[in-house]
This record gives sequence, C-alpha cells and structure tokens, in this order.
Amino acid sequence: MDRVRSKRTVASRRSRTPRRGKVWGGIDLGGTKIEAVVIDGHGKPIGHARHPTPTQGEPEDVVREMYGALEDAVQTAGLRLTRLGGVGVGAPGAVDANAGTLARVSNVGRGWTAPFPLAGSLSELTRGEVVLGNDVQVAVAAEYRLGAGRPYRSVLGVWWGTGVGGGLVLDGVPWRGRGAAGEIGHMVVKPGGARCGCGRRGCMEAYAGRGNLERDARKAEEKGEKTQLFELMRKKQRTRLTSSIWKKALEEEDALATKLIERAVHMLGVGIASAINLLDVEAVILGGGLGSRLGAKYAGLIHEAMSPHVFMTERQPPVLVAELGELSGAIGAALLVEPDVT
Amino acid sequence: MDRVRSKRTVASRRSRTPRRGKVWGGIDLGGTKIEAVVIDGHGKPIGHARHPTPTQGEPEDVVREMYGALEDAVQTAGLRLTRLGGVGVGAPGAVDANAGTLARVSNVGRGWTAPFPLAGSLSELTRGEVVLGNDVQVAVAAEYRLGAGRPYRSVLGVWWGTGVGGGLVLDGVPWRGRGAAGEIGHMVVKPGGARCGCGRRGCMEAYAGRGNLERDARKAEEKGEKTQLFELMRKKQRTRLTSSIWKKALEEEDALATKLIERAVHMLGVGIASAINLLDVEAVILGGGLGSRLGAKYAGLIHEAMSPHVFMTERQPPVLVAELGELSGAIGAALLVEPDVT
Repeated sequence: MDRVRSKRTVASRRSRTPRRGKVWGGIDLGGTKIEAVVIDGHGKPIGHARHPTPTQGEPEDVVREMYGALEDAVQTAGLRLTRLGGVGVGAPGAVDANAGTLARVSNVGRGWTAPFPLAGSLSELTRGEVVLGNDVQVAVAAEYRLGAGRPYRSVLGVWWGTGVGGGLVLDGVPWRGRGAAGEIGHMVVKPGGARCGCGRRGCMEAYAGRGNLERDARKAEEKGEKTQLFELMRKKQRTRLTSSIWKKALEEEDALATKLIERAVHMLGVGIASAINLLDVEAVILGGGLGSRLGAKYAGLIHEAMSPHVFMTERQPPVLVAELGELSGAIGAALLVEPDVT
Repeated sequence: MDRVRSKRTVASRRSRTPRRGKVWGGIDLGGTKIEAVVIDGHGKPIGHARHPTPTQGEPEDVVREMYGALEDAVQTAGLRLTRLGGVGVGAPGAVDANAGTLARVSNVGRGWTAPFPLAGSLSELTRGEVVLGNDVQVAVAAEYRLGAGRPYRSVLGVWWGTGVGGGLVLDGVPWRGRGAAGEIGHMVVKPGGARCGCGRRGCMEAYAGRGNLERDARKAEEKGEKTQLFELMRKKQRTRLTSSIWKKALEEEDALATKLIERAVHMLGVGIASAINLLDVEAVILGGGLGSRLGAKYAGLIHEAMSPHVFMTERQPPVLVAELGELSGAIGAALLVEPDVT
C-alpha cells in the first residue's frame, strides 16, 4: 500500500483525471452482515447491497453469499459485473494478503481455523482480480484517504464494535507490522482485570467490545439489575444486543447500559491515550458499529477520558467520527484494487 | 533520518569504504553524567570521556561542561577537535531538532523551561556542525544500526532508567510522530494507580522508573520495612539509589528491592505487550541504566511478564539487552552527524 503515500498532494489531485467509467467492487465481510459496494473514480459508492452473513455452512457458502451481495451492488449501480476493474475484500480473522487466504474466523459460516483461499475462490466467480485485506485496516485506510482523516498524515483508527479493532496510518503509509499490527483492543488497560474473549485478562476489548458488554449485561440482569436492554432486543426481534439497541437504551437513560458504556468509554480513553503517548499521531478516528452509531457525543466523551493521560498536554489529537459510516469497510476494500481514486 | 533506511543491505555495506580518518563526536547529556565519544567510520568509539552533569548554573555552563567532556574524549583518541566531521548531541527534555533548541529540562544545570539554542551555543565552541536529537531515540537508533537491533527492520527500544523512555524504528525508519513519539513510560498500565513524576496516575514509569522506585523504597523504609538499599547508598557515598545499588541489593536478595523490582518488571511486561499488540514489531531492545545493568536475566523476566499479554501468541518478539551499553546514547548522537557508518 506504499502507493497511498503519494496521493495527498494538491498537485497530484488536480492533475489526475479519473478514468472514465472505471469502477471497482469492495466487500466488507462482517460477523453479522456482508456489505458490498461499487465505487467510482472518486471513491464514491455508486452501488450498494447488504446480505446477512451465513451463520452456517462451509467457507465456499460464505464466498457464494459474498458474490451474491456483489452482484446486487453492481445491479443497483445499473452495471454488469464485467465492468468491475477488480474486487477488494476486507475480512476479519487472520488475513494473508499475499497468499489471498483467510484463517481463524469465527461468526462467519461455521467458522474455520486453517487458511482458506478466499481470494482465489471468489475470483473464480467474479472472473477478475480479487485482493484481500484486514477489515479494520482497509476501513481506516478509507477514512484516511476519503473521510475524517483527510487533513492528516498520521492517524489511529479505533473500530468499536463487537470487538475493538485498530488501524494505523503513519506518515501516509498503513502500518501493519508483521501483518498483525493494530490490535488496540488487546492493549492491557487493567492487569489481571476482566476476562476478554481472547482468553486473556484486562484487555481494552474486555471492557469495551460489544460482545463482552452483552455478556456483562446478561450477568447483571441475572443478578437482578434492572435494564431495558433485553426488552429492546426482543421488541426489535434480535438475538443480540446490537449497536442501535445500546444507543436506544442510552437515550432512554437505562442505568445498566449507561454504567457499562461509561466504563467502556473510560477504558477506551485509557488505551487510546497510551497509544498516543507511544506514537504521537495527529488524530484518532472512531468507527465500528458502536463508534459510528454513538457518534460525536461519545467521541467527545472518549476524548475527555483520554485527555488526562495524554503526555503532550498541549497537543491533544482530536477524536473524530468516521465519515464514511458503515460503508467505510467496503469502500476501503475497493481501494485495495484501485488505490488511485482522487 | 530517512537515510537510515538504505543502510541495511549487504550490497551497500560491501561497496562502502569508510572515509579514511574521518571521525565524529557524540555527546549524551544525561541527568547525572555527560558521556562523550569519538567514533570512527565503523561507528566504533575510539575516544571516550565522562563528566558529571552540572547540577547548578545556566544553560551556558552546561554547554561548557559538554564541550569539556568532548575535548577529553578527543584527547583520549589522540586527536584534535578540528578533526571531527561534526558533533551530535542526544538530550533529554523537549528537543526541537530543526531549531537546534532544548526546552523543559530538569536535573541539568538549574534546569530550564524555555527553548535554549543548545546546538548553536555548542557549535560556537566546536566551530563545526552540531545536531540535536532526543537521547532515547538516538540510543535506539544506535542499537538498531550497530547493536542488538542489527537483524531487524522494526524494533521498540525501552530505556529503563530514572524514567522509562522509548524509541521506535519502523521498517528501518525512526518513528518520532510529531516529535514526541516513544513515551512508553507514560502508557497507562493501571488506571487510577500510582502517582507518576509527570503528575498523572498509573503510568508505567510510576512503577518502573528508578526515580519513583526510590520514592517508594524511602516510603517503605519510613514505615519500618527493612532494606539494605540506603545502607548500600551510604557505603557507596551516593545521594541517590543508582542502578548498581539496585543490582547489588537484588543480588543480596534484599526483600524490599526484590518486591519493588518484581512489580516494575510486571508493569514493564504489561506495557511492552500493549505496545507489541499495537505495533507488531520484530524485537524489543532493553537499555537504560537499570536495563543495561540488570541485563539478560531481567530481560528474560520482562519477556515472561509480557508474554501472557501478547496477542500473536506464536510470534513473540525477543527482549534483547542493548549491546552498546552505556555508550549507546553517545554513539547514537554521533550517528546524527554521520549516519553512513557501516
């Protein structure tokens, strides 16, 4: 992704003419839904479709559903699949971009551990190039290029959803370490603290991830604490506490939801401050299901929670809400195959 | 320092012939001592002198002492000052490398807050180029180039001394953020925890910095805990608990010293693991007064403390002891003026 580096100068922006009619596909493979977009030469989504992620079946079944979502997105754009210049995929789990494989995925199909050749398998259906990337990293790259990160060279993306993912762009270049950088959700905010889904204790995600928040809400309700959270869930005919359920409960000043989200905000602030002290980035971008849904008010609260711990007191990076919303992942995925949009 | 990037290929190593007789000066301005070296074209120190850091006086007095140390180093190399190709300085506090100024320094002279033109002031005495850098960052760059970091492209340096400083080299390039990156000592390892010298609570340095360790040791002694630490201090005619005093106390299994250092090691492990989860670097290099003095055994203990929190279980970076020892800062400073040593 070194090509990203040169895309920020005004000169290069002005001199570029988007290739007429050239479009690209992007798929964001999430734990609950598959978002597919078609973007034009400005990175603008001109087609969009959403399919539920299969909760059963083989990896091949997941690939077929991804293909179906892409077909629908292409159709809403009034185009044919053959028009796509390529397809990018942002995926959770362990992505090997060079090999085009995806390993260690849960909540997708029946889940799988061994590397599955996702890029090759999807490419057989699309009959074109397919490039794989990490879901959070591509979303952060999209925000850096086209969204809230535009004014900056170095940003930390914090994707607050079922888990808490992170993505870094340092001096214009996505930083991936040996492939696994950005695990901000597993920064330790309280040694020996709450159990995390990863099996460790005290991770930021143990306090802030929606999965762990739901676990704690259930425990509290079983112990007799009053909450509307599960009532709202039943009303909305959901089986999990979605981001919009949390939002609704907060708006209705549900005591348990407020308490749990306040603790999450506190721990997000602590972990983000630690990351800032280490990296001195210019801005923090808040995305993910909860981040996008709770929006500017909670970005402000996270900033307040982070602020007392930031070492460079006089130069606190802003905490900005992702601007591309729920499509940032799919748009960022499309940028994997065409990073030259202007 | 982008020039560092190209220095790692075998080809460039072999094709380079060090300029005959070319030498450079490096000064490490510390809170207790000024180390000055003269290095040759291989980065090898061929002259060395150590002066105590003035604890009183104006910035100009500090500069004169630095010059004195440099003169002595040049003399031990059997050379004259005019032979130096330039002088680099690694300094604590707020370094503005472009302006050549140093601000917010304590423990040096009477300390100062406003930016002082250190590079210009020293350059009037040396009559040559003077380049300023952050003390820990230059030390880590030296270890990356000439020491324990040689086999790697991306390292995190943890400088464990009076405070806990950090330095990053990412894909061969020192990462300084907006100038203040690397403050690993102020990553939060326990929200609301122990008071740090920076005024905040729960920083890694609050548990691991030698300054805070001494404060806690004094408090414990006042409360009646038995320890040899201060007895050793008096015997060695020191006014502070130096790294060698801590080492001696640990060797003699002093209960308080052991307890405090164990807690420090635990918190270093937690903070370093968080940094690894965020950045996925290849190796950690442990330096600084305590880090170098306590050496491989404690590097091993820090690795043990960090290991349970590292997200990529199967790919744990090693924790290596700095190889250039107490001179890494001065050698790294000299590399500021000649980064092309091979």
